[in-house]
Amino acid sequence: MNSCGMVEGNLIVGQSGGPTAVINQSLIGVVREARFHNKHIKKILGMHNGIEGMLKEDLIDLGGKMPRELAEVAESPASGLGSCRKKPTEADCKKIFEICKKYDIRYFFYIGGNDSSLSARIINKIAQDNSYELRVFHVPKTIDNDLLVTDHCPGFGSAAKYVAQCFMGNDLDNRALPGIKIDICMGRTAGWLTAASGLACQHPGDGPHLIYIPERPKSLKVIIGDVEKVYKQYKRCLVSCSEGVCDEDGHEFLNSEKIRGELTELKMDFVIKWMDAFGEMLQGAGRGKPDAFGHMQLSGTGALADMLACVISTALTRSLGKTPRVRADTLGYAQRSFAGVVSDVDAREAHMVGESAVKYAVFGNLDGSVVMERTGQGEDYHVEPKLASLEAVAGLALIEKGLPNHRPVADTFINTEGNGVTEAFFEYLRPLVGRLPSKGLLKRDEQLT
Amino acid sequence: MNSCGMVEGNLIVGQSGGPTAVINQSLIGVVREARFHNKHIKKILGMHNGIEGMLKEDLIDLGGKMPRELAEVAESPASGLGSCRKKPTEADCKKIFEICKKYDIRYFFYIGGNDSSLSARIINKIAQDNSYELRVFHVPKTIDNDLLVTDHCPGFGSAAKYVAQCFMGNDLDNRALPGIKIDICMGRTAGWLTAASGLACQHPGDGPHLIYIPERPKSLKVIIGDVEKVYKQYKRCLVSCSEGVCDEDGHEFLNSEKIRGELTELKMDFVIKWMDAFGEMLQGAGRGKPDAFGHMQLSGTGALADMLACVISTALTRSLGKTPRVRADTLGYAQRSFAGVVSDVDAREAHMVGESAVKYAVFGNLDGSVVMERTGQGEDYHVEPKLASLEAVAGLALIEKGLPNHRPVADTFINTEGNGVTEAFFEYLRPLVGRLPSKGLLKRDEQLT
Repeated sequence: MNSCGMVEGNLIVGQSGGPTAVINQSLIGVVREARFHNKHIKKILGMHNGIEGMLKEDLIDLGGKMPRELAEVAESPASGLGSCRKKPTEADCKKIFEICKKYDIRYFFYIGGNDSSLSARIINKIAQDNSYELRVFHVPKTIDNDLLVTDHCPGFGSAAKYVAQCFMGNDLDNRALPGIKIDICMGRTAGWLTAASGLACQHPGDGPHLIYIPERPKSLKVIIGDVEKVYKQYKRCLVSCSEGVCDEDGHEFLNSEKIRGELTELKMDFVIKWMDAFGEMLQGAGRGKPDAFGHMQLSGTGALADMLACVISTALTRSLGKTPRVRADTLGYAQRSFAGVVSDVDAREAHMVGESAVKYAVFGNLDGSVVMERTGQGEDYHVEPKLASLEAVAGLALIEKGLPNHRPVADTFINTEGNGVTEAFFEYLRPLVGRLPSKGLLKRDEQLT
Repeated sequence: MNSCGMVEGNLIVGQSGGPTAVINQSLIGVVREARFHNKHIKKILGMHNGIEGMLKEDLIDLGGKMPRELAEVAESPASGLGSCRKKPTEADCKKIFEICKKYDIRYFFYIGGNDSSLSARIINKIAQDNSYELRVFHVPKTIDNDLLVTDHCPGFGSAAKYVAQCFMGNDLDNRALPGIKIDICMGRTAGWLTAASGLACQHPGDGPHLIYIPERPKSLKVIIGDVEKVYKQYKRCLVSCSEGVCDEDGHEFLNSEKIRGELTELKMDFVIKWMDAFGEMLQGAGRGKPDAFGHMQLSGTGALADMLACVISTALTRSLGKTPRVRADTLGYAQRSFAGVVSDVDAREAHMVGESAVKYAVFGNLDGSVVMERTGQGEDYHVEPKLASLEAVAGLALIEKGLPNHRPVADTFINTEGNGVTEAFFEYLRPLVGRLPSKGLLKRDEQLT
């Protein structure tokens, strides 16, 4: 990132990637802050559906919006400007630059994940090569919490709160009608959100009793063993499993040759047959792509939940001699956009990073990504915004080495067995989620018999 | 129901069937009210896991609980005493009666659906035949809202609120990243909860755009046509579909010969193949039972969502020439037990029916079910508790005629096309759900281009 003086012109802001409960707080943070700087920022424009709309010059005037409309949008989940999943090509970036020139845009804000950070960087490079002063800022968001550099990501706290409250209810439900319950959480590459389900534990014996995340590869045999052990102890078991749970080679369960091998060994060929039939159905429907082994990817469906439920039901029927009650849910889009469950801290921070990006831009910085640094812990929890380079947040050095550019759950946050989380993780997480409902239990000490 | 004088003895209360967000309000309503009547009611006992626990004399003393513990349990979802799905046999009922005598139980309260009402009736008959004065009351609960006689059921308003907020978020998510989204809601026999998703519509063009409920049988062709029409109009489509959606013969989609026939006609045999493979997997896992046609029932899985997504994706790829973005979620147990999303009205009413049951019992009624009568509409919404007979709430007359003993969504609440709800339904529903978050949208009238 570089520094220089003031520049006068118009501002544009866009949203990219999957929605979150607070991505609109960042958007409205940008708009509200920009209004204070009307000496330098003339028009405040929005891209409709991110750079996809920008390329079509599908723009919205945000400068004239009434405070009430802005407030309502800020409080609503999902991307108010519309989003897109487009990774711009070099040609797209050139066109975006031309459109910036055409509309006299000098301030460019892109709210999104690490892909957005990369796009922002390319656009800025073109502007610099053309000696056009464009201030390009990335504003981070993701429920996955896997962006580099920042302590945590806006959007994660609210998603974690939703997941925690969902598991609190699921745990009480599982206490009421005991059996094995498996819940699949979002998080393809990192287990942060799945791990957050651990917050549902408030009393001894509370679930989730097992947490499986991509950071700790697993085999079916290990999972079956874990579940059986918990089930014998508590007569029930609540499992939290990331959609990205994988084998030792890093392949997701539903696209793993190792898991297929295990299923054959376990004499569960009917599961393989169903996976193949599922793949053929998806292919027939024009959905998804075959993986490295030529199998159709079953992600984004209820398949992992249905598969694990059947595997565990089969295994436990064989070892216990009777079929336990097994149910499975895939938590779905509600994790990122449920209306009305928001972490206050997350909402405030998302707004702050949006505001901060405008301040950094106006006060002489050329580009960067607004990250958060934790400056106070526990009761004294506090974060400060900080400017990081687009390259650092995008993980360019990692990408160039062919390494993944996301931040996994820290080792100190995962238990030794690799099937749960530690107190250190809760210390990290609690301030981001805020107050949760308390889970009332009827104590059994007054039991009569 | 009969009336007589006062009786002195102990009280027992139990919970049955699927949990709700407010079934504990009814439980604590019983306990709190019973404490006022300590002249007649001596001990206050709870059955652990309903009559399953009662049969094992697994009882809990609720009389000595501290107010704070009761308050915390009242505010928590799922059945605090534990639940069961047991339909008692005649022999079980006799044993329950013997246990009532053994513990000097004179007041018997069972919180549950219409099955519970039937069980209560049988137990009471045995007591009467034995000239033992037992006051047996049913306290209704169900998120399905399909109990007879009552205006609505405790538990439904909170589940409806959860579903509405979930669809609000899903609709904003679908606006942000347009495509076709299908959400499967609970409700095997009645479409009340699925219909409640309509509350998510706050602005013109808002989804859910289509609502499918068991009360209006459908074919795949009709659904495909509906979705295509909406998709052409809005470039997106949010579908709300009941897990109990069925064909003209009343068979659920995944267990329907008609739907299999349609799939063959539509040249989607890969879907049939997958359904069969799924059935074989469930059978291998010892889960579920084969239906009338010998196919395994796929209910309680993500299968309906996955199947509809593939059918719609295939059909629209063929008719539009390119594959639209199609996603599907099965909302799952969160609908009945998510912690922290509760309708205030529902919570108050659930408490009230519990309290009222005790009052009816103490003040001379022998048995009955506490229903709610709506005595004020709209802004003046008000309900009064009323005592109905156990036979009426259980729908005994209907059962004896071989008819279903549940209450379907009223005809006046369903639109002419059978794919949406009417304003009359919203007038019925709104007071039960209470205030919802408002959905902020950036208006496009300030669009620049």
